[in-house]
Amino acid sequence: MSRLLTLLTDFGSQDSYVGAMKGVIYSLCPQATLVDLCHEVPAQDVAAGRWQLLQAVPYFPAGSVHLAVVDPDVGSDRRAVVIETAIGLLIGPDNGLWSGVLSRFPAQRAVSLTNPNYWQSPQPDPTFHGRDIFAPAAAHLLNGVPLTELGPLIDPASLQTLIESHPQRSDQGWQGQIQAIDRFGNLITNLPAELGQTAAGLIWGDRWLPLARTYSEVAIGELLVLAGSHGYLEIAQRNGSAQQTLAANMGAVVRLVCGRAP
Amino acid sequence: MSRLLTLLTDFGSQDSYVGAMKGVIYSLCPQATLVDLCHEVPAQDVAAGRWQLLQAVPYFPAGSVHLAVVDPDVGSDRRAVVIETAIGLLIGPDNGLWSGVLSRFPAQRAVSLTNPNYWQSPQPDPTFHGRDIFAPAAAHLLNGVPLTELGPLIDPASLQTLIESHPQRSDQGWQGQIQAIDRFGNLITNLPAELGQTAAGLIWGDRWLPLARTYSEVAIGELLVLAGSHGYLEIAQRNGSAQQTLAANMGAVVRLVCGRAP
Amino acid sequence: MSRLLTLLTDFGSQDSYVGAMKGVIYSLCPQATLVDLCHEVPAQDVAAGRWQLLQAVPYFPAGSVHLAVVDPDVGSDRRAVVIETAIGLLIGPDNGLWSGVLSRFPAQRAVSLTNPNYWQSPQPDPTFHGRDIFAPAAAHLLNGVPLTELGPLIDPASLQTLIESHPQRSDQGWQGQIQAIDRFGNLITNLPAELGQTAAGLIWGDRWLPLARTYSEVAIGELLVLAGSHGYLEIAQRNGSAQQTLAANMGAVVRLVCGRAP
Repeated sequence: MSRLLTLLTDFGSQDSYVGAMKGVIYSLCPQATLVDLCHEVPAQDVAAGRWQLLQAVPYFPAGSVHLAVVDPDVGSDRRAVVIETAIGLLIGPDNGLWSGVLSRFPAQRAVSLTNPNYWQSPQPDPTFHGRDIFAPAAAHLLNGVPLTELGPLIDPASLQTLIESHPQRSDQGWQGQIQAIDRFGNLITNLPAELGQTAAGLIWGDRWLPLARTYSEVAIGELLVLAGSHGYLEIAQRNGSAQQTLAANMGAVVRLVCGRAP
Repeated sequence: MSRLLTLLTDFGSQDSYVGAMKGVIYSLCPQATLVDLCHEVPAQDVAAGRWQLLQAVPYFPAGSVHLAVVDPDVGSDRRAVVIETAIGLLIGPDNGLWSGVLSRFPAQRAVSLTNPNYWQSPQPDPTFHGRDIFAPAAAHLLNGVPLTELGPLIDPASLQTLIESHPQRSDQGWQGQIQAIDRFGNLITNLPAELGQTAAGLIWGDRWLPLARTYSEVAIGELLVLAGSHGYLEIAQRNGSAQQTLAANMGAVVRLVCGRAP
Repeated sequence: MSRLLTLLTDFGSQDSYVGAMKGVIYSLCPQATLVDLCHEVPAQDVAAGRWQLLQAVPYFPAGSVHLAVVDPDVGSDRRAVVIETAIGLLIGPDNGLWSGVLSRFPAQRAVSLTNPNYWQSPQPDPTFHGRDIFAPAAAHLLNGVPLTELGPLIDPASLQTLIESHPQRSDQGWQGQIQAIDRFGNLITNLPAELGQTAAGLIWGDRWLPLARTYSEVAIGELLVLAGSHGYLEIAQRNGSAQQTLAANMGAVVRLVCGRAP
């Protein structure tokens, strides 16, 4: 059984919160191999955490355990969950943080972490479920404790989603959403790059954005659509910020036009 | 024997100083499992390092080795020490950095790291004891070298303390100190949260600060005393910074009043 | 065979790019022990990365594998290489990033990573060779794949160099170069500290900089030459920045005068 456990949080690296979580994990499972994915997710930015996970988790060996905590509603009645998938076990708050990875590796089973026998203490700190609920759950799973010991099964279809998992078929082609915005202002859609092979471009509001293979195919300042290294189509601006030019937000709708430009 | 070794420094993550320390450790003990607690402790801020250690080290399995370097007096005649406790072996400069953890896990034995046979070189760099004295000491301890090989035993009572380890009994209840200030301006005392169960509030100078369970028990802008997730009583201000309002400093004295409010 | 692999990049810690690389490595070599040296090398600053590597890699056990990616020309025809040395295997772009370590541990053999059987995919992403070429190469080497499987041997003498590997003999002593500038504005030369034992000082343009053992040997504001903890001679200014005072740049030439001051 794999003992590989990855960690992603928005706890930053100036405090020892992540250190406390690692202490809890090693205390329960000394043989764990811990891998830090990223702890500098912008505070409470679930969408950013979702995207970071989607960029890293699929590269890990199947059977690994992945723990992510970006949890603005910690202490409320949002659920704490473990989700079983073909790529491994995903642990975290039920707020859409895992919905990116789940768009590629669907949930097979899921449980709600309500069994206090597997918590760090009978009264978890309401501000630090990372240490008191999620970290011990991860360690117990590494130790081979069955998923269903940790709490009751829940309907995978009830898990929160942040961005549509899959683009929708439309008259002209596909309708998708912006699922991430990078530091250069590129708008990353949830349209897989392969869809670009039969498409002419994207409709954004009343603008037409042509598909291209490189920036040099359009004039400086023009917008274009490219297949990004992340495997999705993205809207970029040559020598500019598509985000600023289009005043774009996460979740905004885009329409991919297959066949000829309209 | 455990091979788990945690590291905390103020070296930051823009240089490879921590990397050099890890190289020294792996060269002496290839089976080590290294865990980074935090390397972004504010430069030379021993009190901040003390608090980070207190928040993380107690969660690790007993028998681990813990190395911390926040060492403004490196190269002076301050001692370099290893301290044996029930939680494990603590390594670092003798400047109070370990005094928080020692308030919970008292020193049983301690040695001064003066045996050059266990240094990285006969002439340690006077600015980098982390690499040349502390890292090799940690690796040798992981390898099972007895504590007393590394240098002469010293009196545990002679180890430096930064904040009183324990609150003192007083007429009305307990006298304590501010041992940390978080980024929200909350003032964290060294009074264990349990003491709050029979107390009415804190006296700060000539102000009375009532104990409460949640922020909502006081009006906006009011000060209050809460049990924090760290296990200690803290002074907070609803929608404000207690640090600014009280012009508070580390080490400031607070008096807990048991029984009724005065 | 050692399974120790160190990682240095300029990818920062706000994204999960390093996480993706670790996923690729663990998928191919689950027994790897990964050690982060530094991921906060200033973006595209090959000289800074070269210096960080020189400060950390020599402390690791011989036989380790070291992977570094500071790669402003990724996607161009610059070579991706593995270099065999007495200290271990060095992987990265052929742009001088490894030339510091190579000045101490000369290249014995080197190969160009052109065999697509050892890439992450037949079409590596032109912006992310770290994940698609370098990470899998490192994992295969950890697994014992022979160097020459990964691509054709190349002439070690053809590897790029950023700073002269070794100071040159001159009439008066030695000619060297500035190989790093630290955060205090100290100018670190490539002149080994030992050369200082028989020298009187350095010539910088038309200025004479005396060798000293401590700052206190010169007046406030004066420039001096010291043996630094990194093992090289460095130009410093007491209570000032030598970089600003001398308007110095990386690579600038310095001349060490042996014997008497001129």
